[in-house]
Amino acid sequence: MSQSPGRKQENHKISRELFVLTYGALVAQLCKDYEKDEDVNTCLDRMGYSMGVRLIDDFLARSAVKKCRSYSETADMIAQVAFKTYLGVTPSVSCSSATGNEFSLILDKNPLVDFVEELPAERASLCYCNLLCGVIRGALEMVHLAAEVTFRQDRLKGDAVTEIGITFLRKPEDRKHKRN
Amino acid sequence: MSQSPGRKQENHKISRELFVLTYGALVAQLCKDYEKDEDVNTCLDRMGYSMGVRLIDDFLARSAVKKCRSYSETADMIAQVAFKTYLGVTPSVSCSSATGNEFSLILDKNPLVDFVEELPAERASLCYCNLLCGVIRGALEMVHLAAEVTFRQDRLKGDAVTEIGITFLRKPEDRKHKRN
Repeated sequence: MSQSPGRKQENHKISRELFVLTYGALVAQLCKDYEKDEDVNTCLDRMGYSMGVRLIDDFLARSAVKKCRSYSETADMIAQVAFKTYLGVTPSVSCSSATGNEFSLILDKNPLVDFVEELPAERASLCYCNLLCGVIRGALEMVHLAAEVTFRQDRLKGDAVTEIGITFLRKPEDRKHKRN
Repeated sequence: MSQSPGRKQENHKISRELFVLTYGALVAQLCKDYEKDEDVNTCLDRMGYSMGVRLIDDFLARSAVKKCRSYSETADMIAQVAFKTYLGVTPSVSCSSATGNEFSLILDKNPLVDFVEELPAERASLCYCNLLCGVIRGALEMVHLAAEVTFRQDRLKGDAVTEIGITFLRKPEDRKHKRN
């Protein structure tokens, strides 16, 4: 049958449409399960986190990337390699703090909302794509980078762009090392 | 929304891993929501149906396929074009009835279960990939083909292959037309 012995040659890509509709079904189910948008958001983030924890191995194996030496390099890697690989889009990156640990990923187009017209009025606080925040957070944690990842702007809510904010949390031992 | 003019040039492919993990999260959520496997299976089928109803337009638009003139052609189209496009795999097809309206799609490898080791003992009746049956059923219905679509074998349940059975249901008007 279709799978030739050369598994390496396998097509690891699938159509985005099937994914987008499946994701929509997941969000719709959570909206049935939880009355409060905040609970749906938390659940999506938590699910994403578990996925990120698993995806990071796949990411490191396939992309053969080198260790990032700065938060800035890490943010670029997420945008240019991870988003490109997993979602087929490349957000632009900007550093949004003088302290150099806050970054914005700006998506002109968010592939996850292809079939979504707008959020229903009663779901105005829903972070529809919150799974992505969880995925980033989970994956970063597996490479020992604690981060807060949240949506700062969302075209679904009328903003001009979709913006994911990543704030790298400096760990106590970092500060200690720097002092030494 | 979000449909830019240059949509044709866009990368419509995404990584299978992200999809597979998202699908896993959906199934896990439904298993939390419903105690009985049968209810999860029904829910997955129903969700898939809604997706198939929407996906068919995308499929017809992008594949520019001609109208199938027989059930056999339709089954081949599902395996060789639809599965290939949306899941990156091509099941083999066999006709499984003398009446020519029953077909089997045989998957040596089911991309949806990449991260699934085995079903938990208490979920022995779960049709993990039942969404696919719904998608096929929904898409077929939109081109005026009623069908029953079910898993006949499942490697997750210890079978040698994964087999999706499609039984095209002859409509009363078909028979009438034939008589005329």
